[in-house]
Amino acid sequence: MPVANGSRVPRVGIVGAGQLARMTVQTAIPLAVQVRLLAASADDSAAQVCRHVAVAQPTDFPALAAFAAGCDVLTFDHELVEARHLRDLERAGRVLRPSAETMAIAQNKARQFALWRKAGLPSPEKRAVSSAEEIVAFGDEHGWPVIVKAAQGGYDGRGVWVVPDARAAAELWLQALDRGLSLLVEQRVAIEHEIAVVLARRPGGETVVYPVVKTVQRDGICHELHVPAPIDPTLAAEAERIARAVAEAMKVVGILAVEMFVSEGRVLINEIATRPHNSGHFSLGGALTSQFENHLRAVLDWPLGRIDLLAPAVVTRNVLALSAGTNLHAGITAALAIPGVMVHLYGKQPRPGRKVGHVTALGDDLDDARERATRAVEALGGIIWERGAEREEAHP
Amino acid sequence: MPVANGSRVPRVGIVGAGQLARMTVQTAIPLAVQVRLLAASADDSAAQVCRHVAVAQPTDFPALAAFAAGCDVLTFDHELVEARHLRDLERAGRVLRPSAETMAIAQNKARQFALWRKAGLPSPEKRAVSSAEEIVAFGDEHGWPVIVKAAQGGYDGRGVWVVPDARAAAELWLQALDRGLSLLVEQRVAIEHEIAVVLARRPGGETVVYPVVKTVQRDGICHELHVPAPIDPTLAAEAERIARAVAEAMKVVGILAVEMFVSEGRVLINEIATRPHNSGHFSLGGALTSQFENHLRAVLDWPLGRIDLLAPAVVTRNVLALSAGTNLHAGITAALAIPGVMVHLYGKQPRPGRKVGHVTALGDDLDDARERATRAVEALGGIIWERGAEREEAHP
Repeated sequence: MPVANGSRVPRVGIVGAGQLARMTVQTAIPLAVQVRLLAASADDSAAQVCRHVAVAQPTDFPALAAFAAGCDVLTFDHELVEARHLRDLERAGRVLRPSAETMAIAQNKARQFALWRKAGLPSPEKRAVSSAEEIVAFGDEHGWPVIVKAAQGGYDGRGVWVVPDARAAAELWLQALDRGLSLLVEQRVAIEHEIAVVLARRPGGETVVYPVVKTVQRDGICHELHVPAPIDPTLAAEAERIARAVAEAMKVVGILAVEMFVSEGRVLINEIATRPHNSGHFSLGGALTSQFENHLRAVLDWPLGRIDLLAPAVVTRNVLALSAGTNLHAGITAALAIPGVMVHLYGKQPRPGRKVGHVTALGDDLDDARERATRAVEALGGIIWERGAEREEAHP
Repeated sequence: MPVANGSRVPRVGIVGAGQLARMTVQTAIPLAVQVRLLAASADDSAAQVCRHVAVAQPTDFPALAAFAAGCDVLTFDHELVEARHLRDLERAGRVLRPSAETMAIAQNKARQFALWRKAGLPSPEKRAVSSAEEIVAFGDEHGWPVIVKAAQGGYDGRGVWVVPDARAAAELWLQALDRGLSLLVEQRVAIEHEIAVVLARRPGGETVVYPVVKTVQRDGICHELHVPAPIDPTLAAEAERIARAVAEAMKVVGILAVEMFVSEGRVLINEIATRPHNSGHFSLGGALTSQFENHLRAVLDWPLGRIDLLAPAVVTRNVLALSAGTNLHAGITAALAIPGVMVHLYGKQPRPGRKVGHVTALGDDLDDARERATRAVEALGGIIWERGAEREEAHP
């Protein structure tokens, strides 16, 4: 269905106003696409740079419905709108991209795993559990330790726990009960590499797939992207095949990011997101068309842009603030003095471990690009974990 | 003098809200620089995409002074603020970049020519005139036809006339008198190429110079940029030398664009602008750091970004609307279907001949890039002059 392919400025509504929406606002400017935001707060990252901002919580259905009525198409910065509200919007005739059904799957890891199994897509064995005993049974069957995840809402290492034994399982279960979390238990696999594939897909199925990314994670948080991933081309091709199959299975419209493990020579699906994603940040300045622009083009059902890298190697590093006193505006001068580094700040108040920006460096090889990106993160006052800055393991 | 190199978000005020300011707003987002606009109208190109907009005419001094008081540094989208107002702002302690003195020179072609002569920089012979007889005397001395220009305020072919003889000079003089224009008469030189050099300069003198651009003009309006200019490297080096000397002579801070002629093997200065300029549009998406970002970095006295091209050849074509009925939002779908083309729309209502956007294509060679850029302009409903679309010659 074409959206606003006429004489008017197309209006794309984004629910949520974090850094993903902020970078989408930026890339909408040259396309003369009007982005409207439903921000939880007027100070949110994207709200600082957008002319059209409504303020309401994503759970406030009347506000959401009123916001949607002023947009040609509605898309998302996060997974916080309840699935039933998304369905109600579609019933009221609003165009959601991705659809309510795709978003409902994106919000639920158990539904995802069922879908991967049905489509024959490889993923670590997992199971929804409704008691500590079920965790223990799974661990006894598949081996300890196991990974336990919140079935909904976890990200950046939150909502993920490594459980070594039955006693720890019982303890975790009680804590989860207190917080009303539903849990999923997952087989812990040996991880040789963590990789990700980002793609954009139009309603009719036209798809462009970005080069495979090697991600470097710490405590479940992505710290670095190395593009193209220095892995066997056969594995890269398999990763791309899987990502395309996930997009088809979920009928994705817009950006899909599939995070994967390389484990014992196999590629396994870890997590997915149906929106612009940290794994695709290298594309803004590192590829001919960014994930943010291609997300807009996909949700408007416009032709997608080429994803060619602009250099042989692209490295992106996230900037996680060392402390609340991290002074990004003083640090930016030192960061920009490093040749060939692009700095992206999100307009967020620093707090220890908070993701406040990223830097991208183009290079002739990954080592060269990584070295400059690392110096830029250091200049900005970000955490360089390989130099000893540690973060507490997350607990429920 | 460092500006806002502290703990606060730096606030850059731009007087004017055309497409140059719009693209500056876009590039300010990742740097977390707050751009504030003084727009002549709330609908202006840049005002559509900026959170902080004050509306007033650039000639309204009280409004300008109030606007400047809320900014750490003031810069410009055009040359429409009177020189005496700029001086008054500096006297009141405001930081203007470029300075009132640089802007006063940028506004006055007679002052520029005196400066080029003093610095030994080549430019077609010219003279301020105060009667038709002086035009005739100049023509008799340097040969007919001569070029007559408005000493202030002309651009895009407006305020420039080719005068073939004494009778036409007398006629033009009467028309200029009616409109209160002061005039300059200039030697008409043989033009082999039109080229431009865009550079960015910090207060301390640090300068980065973009590759030399070949410009293709029609009726005084720039239609195409070919980068790097396919000219003799000796001429390119001379063009760069001249641009650097102009920047020093004018004490430019921010972007300087120098438009030049190649005439009988020599490089001659034609026009200059001390702000982001159409000649530098290729840099947005075609070079590692755009002129808009480097303008911001220069006026904030931050380190400048690398200007490397992102492909062997970059071609930019302006989109001048064929008619008021040109439907850019319908045309964009066809334009984006052309591989490797970046589309930049300015949010302006089409009118015949109005510059409403530009497209940039990266390529392995200029022919390849130009072919795709041309198809994109056609798809958007822009004038392709080599295919017969004509514009009336401008008259005073």
